[in-house]
This record gives sequence, C-alpha cells and structure tokens, in this order.
Amino acid sequence: MAAGGPTQRVVRLTLAYDGTGFSGWARQPGARTVEGALTAALERVLRVRPRLSVAGRTDAGVHARGQEVSFPVRDAVDPERIQRAVNALLAPEVVVVAARLAGPRFDARFSATARVYAYRIDTAPWPDPFTSRFVWHRPGRLPLAPMRHAARDLRGTHDFASFARARKDRSSTVRTLRRLTVAERGPLLTVTAEADGFLHQMVRSLVGTLVDVAEGRIAADTIPSVLAAGDRAAAGRVAPASGLTLERVRYRLG
Amino acid sequence: MAAGGPTQRVVRLTLAYDGTGFSGWARQPGARTVEGALTAALERVLRVRPRLSVAGRTDAGVHARGQEVSFPVRDAVDPERIQRAVNALLAPEVVVVAARLAGPRFDARFSATARVYAYRIDTAPWPDPFTSRFVWHRPGRLPLAPMRHAARDLRGTHDFASFARARKDRSSTVRTLRRLTVAERGPLLTVTAEADGFLHQMVRSLVGTLVDVAEGRIAADTIPSVLAAGDRAAAGRVAPASGLTLERVRYRLG
Repeated sequence: MAAGGPTQRVVRLTLAYDGTGFSGWARQPGARTVEGALTAALERVLRVRPRLSVAGRTDAGVHARGQEVSFPVRDAVDPERIQRAVNALLAPEVVVVAARLAGPRFDARFSATARVYAYRIDTAPWPDPFTSRFVWHRPGRLPLAPMRHAARDLRGTHDFASFARARKDRSSTVRTLRRLTVAERGPLLTVTAEADGFLHQMVRSLVGTLVDVAEGRIAADTIPSVLAAGDRAAAGRVAPASGLTLERVRYRLG
Repeated sequence: MAAGGPTQRVVRLTLAYDGTGFSGWARQPGARTVEGALTAALERVLRVRPRLSVAGRTDAGVHARGQEVSFPVRDAVDPERIQRAVNALLAPEVVVVAARLAGPRFDARFSATARVYAYRIDTAPWPDPFTSRFVWHRPGRLPLAPMRHAARDLRGTHDFASFARARKDRSSTVRTLRRLTVAERGPLLTVTAEADGFLHQMVRSLVGTLVDVAEGRIAADTIPSVLAAGDRAAAGRVAPASGLTLERVRYRLG
C-alpha cells in the first residue's frame, strides 16, 4: 500500500463524527459521505487530492469517536495546520481530534490490529432528544443474563458468516472476537465489541441477535448452532445504524 | 387565565426538546417552532386546537429537558394516550416525557415559582460531534475564581435591566436570582441559574458576562455597577443559544 521513495511521509488523522447526516464513510457519486467531505476539505488544504486509507468503513448513519485515517503526502506538511484548516471547514459534524506524522509504512487500515465498537441501546420508555442520534431507542428492560450467556459463546475465533451480509468475493469470514460485553447504566445498555476486524454489518448483527436472545426469540444456548450454520438467516435481526459508534482502533506500539 | 366551569380539566405535559432546528418556542407564521409543532400534533390528537400555557418561552436554538406546558380541555381525556399519540408524531426531537391531569387552576406559566436553566460551555480545543448541539464551544480554559466572584454579586434580588433585551413595555425588570453557580467537569463548564423568572435573554447575558469576566474583559468586582447601570451596554456579550437548556420548572407542592 504505502510504496514510495525514502522521502515519503504519511499523515495520520483521528476523526470523530456524527454519522446521522452521511451515507456512510465510503465515497459514492451523488451521496454525502464522510470520505467525500474529508477528501474535499483536504484537497482544499493540500491543493492535491489525497488517497485515504481508513480503519473502519462505517455504514450509513454509523458514528465514530476514534476513526483512523492515513494518507501519503509528497511535500513536508504541518499536521496541526491540516487539523485546524479541516476543522474550520467541517466541524462540528466531522472533527479531526488528532493529527500527526506517522512512519512511512503506516497505513490506517492495514496496520490496525483491532477495532473497538460500542453499540448503545436506550431502553427508556421514550427517546431522549439529547442522545437519540447516537442510540437505538428500544423501550423496555432487557434481561442481561441471557445476553451475556450468548455473548460468551460468540467470543473467540469463529467463522462469522452467519453475522455478515453475504459477500461477493470468497475471502475468509473467520474473525477473532476478543471482547463482546454488555454493560448497563440506568436505561442505557452498551454492547462493546472488539475484534481484529469485522465483516460487513457484523456488529449490528451481533447486537440484533443479543436483543433477540433477550426477547426470547432466539434461545441463548443456540449460539453455537447459529455460528455453525454459516447462514445469515440463522442469526437475529440487524440492529439500526444509529446505535453504533467506532470508538477506537488499535495499532502495534512503535 | 384558567377561567371555566366546574368541569374544567387541565392537562399538564413535561417536554424535552432539541431546539436546534426550531425558531424557538413561540408560534410565528412561516417559522418552525416548538409551540407550532406541538399545537399541530395536539390538534390532530384532540380534534380541537388547544390554547397552550408554557413555563419558559425559549428562544431560537434553546433546548429543554423539563419544559412545562398546560392547556384546558372540555372533555375527559387520557393523558397517557395524548403522550403516546404526540410522541408518535413528534419524537425524538420533541418528546412528551410526562403527561398528567392537573388541578383546574393549574397554569404552567402562572403557577410556576421558579425556572432552572443550565448553560454548558465546552472549553476543549475542538468541538465534540456528540454534544456540539447542546453546548457553546469556546476553546481554552476559563478561570473559575473570577466567574464565581461575579456570580456571587449577581445572586439575589436586583433590577436585571442590564441583563435583558430592551423591553417595549414598562413591566418590572426586578428578579430574584436564587442560584447562579459554575461547575467544572473536565473541559465542560456548567452554569446553573435559578430564578422566579427570567427576562428575555437574561441567562445568556449572565453567562456572556461571566465569560467576559473570566477573560478579563470585565473586572470581576464591577458587577454591582453593571447592575446599577440598568443599561444593556454595561453588561457583557450574549452567549449563544445552543448552550442553553431549560432544565426544570418548580411549582408549589399540592
């Protein structure tokens, strides 16, 4: 990815965004996307269109608090100047929360070792106008014990084909889910998922399945057979995009 | 206000709203207002247009977590049904968080004994897309000691003409500010103001003045003379609407 002469520099940006008004990360003709908005802003600042690498290609309506982006630059640049200029163009919907020079081989996507997502479910009777853009409002208490039972069976290295949109290519659907936890604070449930990588709609499929388990529509002890089926129809529903936030991306030290 | 026969019933609603997309509370022709949206929704549900009384006539862009509204009804109504139906039409931007029948003489505006507002200032270097709709983003630490000194001199019963938009009528500009405090939590400052009533733009003028004091543009010990001037020009700037939220309204017990 990051081929280039010895003078190549790579800029790394950490982004936070409210994904509500965007058709996801990936640039598409005629659609308002985070990549499109960021590329246009960077092109104005750098006077050349950057080729962005991104750690998490978030879907329409999905948010980020710690998205990571990188791009090579030919000339010496001042990351703080880029941060100020881009934020002046895009904030507060999309904010560059950190900007720095990375090593010449750094690539936000391929250097990442893990992605951490949080999914927030508001179980209060009515939505809260102050947080509704960032949660799935699903009124009514959810019992945690069956959700945690199912989460335990989902953790680890599995073929997650049952938890992903069908893929056109034949690439592997095996992933290592290092963490899948459910925390409760008042009416707010937070599901945290960490893996080396996620398949398309995987976090939302995992959360939808956990909620189906909590509601008794899927038995908590059937997760091993759902995984074994290798079929999207075996898992639960896909939770709405609004509740999902890419919280952070991990890289090897140094 | 609440004249009527012995059978009069009054419905009381507690509202939360994100004021970002509204031209304030008060209905105006051609503008999207909270009162206009709520009245239209209630008219659909009740099949008659209600005459609303409101505790706080919030300005354009101002939010509410505990706004109080009341209206008389002729027929027996089920407040929970009104709540469900209005929320189905308006949520999540405007949410009826509570609905009940009040005594026949209850009036959300005239029965109120105090209004409590919170004003939030985010002093972090960059805005936070998750909270930016509900704060004033003003980067850079603000020293609390001079703000608290000024707040102490503002508390109490004073003529607050210096802290209000000029009025056309000659009604009193004396108010009792029972509480004006500044709390800090990380980069977030919260100014809480409680009074029997507030003049137009009074909370935002108080906050703007406190920030001017923190920034050294107004000396902390000159507040008594600012109050004595009785002139809008003597006080500081008016803080932006986005940071202001009507938190709750107090009524006499019983």
